Amino acid sequence: MVEERALSSSSTKPVIPIAPWAAGIRVSALQEMLSNSRPVLSFALGLPAPELFPTGEIGQATSAVLGDGKAALQYGPPSEELREHIVEIMRWRGVSCYASEIFLTSGAQQGLSLLAKLLIGPGSSVICENFAYTGFLQAIEPMTPKIRTVETDLSTGIDVGALESLLLSNIGLSVLYINPDGHNPLGLSVGPDKRLRLANLASAGSLTIVEDDPYGLLQYDKLAPPVKALEPHRVLYVGSFSKILSPALRVGWLVVPESLHLALANIKEGSDLNTATFSQRVVCKYLTYGTLRKHICNLTNVYRRRRDLMLCTLARILPPGSQWTSPSGGVFVWVELPEPYDAVLLLERALTEQGIAFFPGTAFSVRIGYERARRSLRLNFSHCTEDQIEDGLTRIGRILSDWS
Amino acid sequence: MVEERALSSSSTKPVIPIAPWAAGIRVSALQEMLSNSRPVLSFALGLPAPELFPTGEIGQATSAVLGDGKAALQYGPPSEELREHIVEIMRWRGVSCYASEIFLTSGAQQGLSLLAKLLIGPGSSVICENFAYTGFLQAIEPMTPKIRTVETDLSTGIDVGALESLLLSNIGLSVLYINPDGHNPLGLSVGPDKRLRLANLASAGSLTIVEDDPYGLLQYDKLAPPVKALEPHRVLYVGSFSKILSPALRVGWLVVPESLHLALANIKEGSDLNTATFSQRVVCKYLTYGTLRKHICNLTNVYRRRRDLMLCTLARILPPGSQWTSPSGGVFVWVELPEPYDAVLLLERALTEQGIAFFPGTAFSVRIGYERARRSLRLNFSHCTEDQIEDGLTRIGRILSDWS
Repeated sequence: MVEERALSSSSTKPVIPIAPWAAGIRVSALQEMLSNSRPVLSFALGLPAPELFPTGEIGQATSAVLGDGKAALQYGPPSEELREHIVEIMRWRGVSCYASEIFLTSGAQQGLSLLAKLLIGPGSSVICENFAYTGFLQAIEPMTPKIRTVETDLSTGIDVGALESLLLSNIGLSVLYINPDGHNPLGLSVGPDKRLRLANLASAGSLTIVEDDPYGLLQYDKLAPPVKALEPHRVLYVGSFSKILSPALRVGWLVVPESLHLALANIKEGSDLNTATFSQRVVCKYLTYGTLRKHICNLTNVYRRRRDLMLCTLARILPPGSQWTSPSGGVFVWVELPEPYDAVLLLERALTEQGIAFFPGTAFSVRIGYERARRSLRLNFSHCTEDQIEDGLTRIGRILSDWS
Repeated sequence: MVEERALSSSSTKPVIPIAPWAAGIRVSALQEMLSNSRPVLSFALGLPAPELFPTGEIGQATSAVLGDGKAALQYGPPSEELREHIVEIMRWRGVSCYASEIFLTSGAQQGLSLLAKLLIGPGSSVICENFAYTGFLQAIEPMTPKIRTVETDLSTGIDVGALESLLLSNIGLSVLYINPDGHNPLGLSVGPDKRLRLANLASAGSLTIVEDDPYGLLQYDKLAPPVKALEPHRVLYVGSFSKILSPALRVGWLVVPESLHLALANIKEGSDLNTATFSQRVVCKYLTYGTLRKHICNLTNVYRRRRDLMLCTLARILPPGSQWTSPSGGVFVWVELPEPYDAVLLLERALTEQGIAFFPGTAFSVRIGYERARRSLRLNFSHCTEDQIEDGLTRIGRILSDWS
């Protein structure tokens, strides 16, 4: 039943009774960062480089869509044509699929939320890594599942051995959340043998895997196909245009067996209507220009240089005993400082003394009080220019060398 | 726990375990209507008249937003400026509120879904009318509440006496869903005394009211202020640009006490990110032109004529003993045929013999097997031209006069 609970800060305001699960809601680190006063220089959020948005072509696409007729602003079924374009994008990604398997969403976050509603009931078993994308946890929280975590190796990714042991311990059917390429927050890519073992666990029926792949096409060294390519049925794939085109358009997709589409359509209809949006029509029109692949190539060239500079600068400024990941994809580097450094205190000093922001590992720790979290930093390298990266990290380095 | 359940039609396809609540999902009438082959003439969906969309001004707004700088396509906090504009729109609607009470959503459906997650836990008590907007039921379904219904008078709206009795029967704190203006599907407006009694029930703390008001600014005779105007704290108001501007932009809003915004922001972040969208920016720019009120005036002039023609034609074609509503707002008329007519059979014949579509009352009946539902039709009057309305209803009239 509903619990009587005051969300008001003043006693003159009404008490609205809210659902028990919602009673524990606190402001998320990401929300706080988005809404608080802006630092001079931020490595915090996973923002694309705004100077690289194909603004002109998007403008051309919006004009073309509005000029196409009166349907542009009307309700309508999700675009078949856009799904065909996404089949082609999935082919670049190394996955063969049909348009009938593509389910259009309002971004990857909605993809996660729809899958959470579809797959998870109260007490359902969900497995993720100790450090995970907080948006996944927010998506599953209203479903009140039982969450279990496994460790992650900073070179090869999720501890599949620990996962196998967990699955042998009779926890029932589980949903596993993974983010194998450009891992958020860890900035790593899962090794090929682990991908195969994950796919085998799913094929054996022990797991349904939700594979979150917003950075899958932002790869700088070699292109590893996702786990979906190895197990097409029991891996539910989440894709997005946010990092390869524009986040404000809010267009993403799922690649899932056709047999789940009816339920997903119903869940999406209840969430925000399963209708074509103006943004979907704009993205579809943009894709007809055939320039996305070249645009992604441009993005990866710029982000690769920023990553290289960040790694090179970190090697110079981090204290002995530090560890950091060397991402082959995505937009984040993960740093673990040795004792006695503390990333939360470092953030406080960086913000107040230098106007520089990043996220401490505590923002992504699924386990409360996880010791490694307080010594860790997530640093974004896609948003700042090369000059800003060098300058910002050098200033963080000054605080570190002054640590007492 | 999760139930093993085949959604696949073929045994060679994998069985993905889904959540128990989702196991009962079937295709919704609205989805079916959107995705199936198109009839020649449709009174089924609540579509705005596409020829009235302010396409030119939306085009001007999109160009201006894209020209404003690189932020147009980037993540960002929900627009403060848009919230200020909505305060002004709420003032036209007869509601005084602050920008800090406006919470931006991806359309009214998302507003309902966010409120469902916020307010409703498993077994929570939810009250609605016997005939209700199906999207509300889809929004609350994943929360597995206990749903109770009350009757509706076709002239004065929801049976507040029955509601008062229900509240005395010790059902615990409840959420009441209402749609007092341009009621979907019933095409009626709740009388002023009932609005006051509803507000009083909320003020007394017996209820939290969710007031769904997508048609509140489409009123043709007199403008009745919503229940929110009478009880600002315990009535949670759901608004939308879908019917007054464009549904494909997917921009709506809530007006709710500021004390609920933190929890709502978190729930929205988990659903599809609480970020400014390109569409929000376009709507905000459009509103700076100051032409929305004139546009709404134009819409109501056209829709009023279509309503009048529909009512006049219904009086001519309906068999003796029929009842129908005379909507002072919104986009629907509700018809109840006498025995032995059957609206589901009528739809079948209308579609196959005349290529005409509408929704039978069964699509909106919360109670299964509700007898009135099979004799009822919901007819939309906003989408078809006057010629189409006259022609389509005349053809339905031919089937009715030929009824055996």
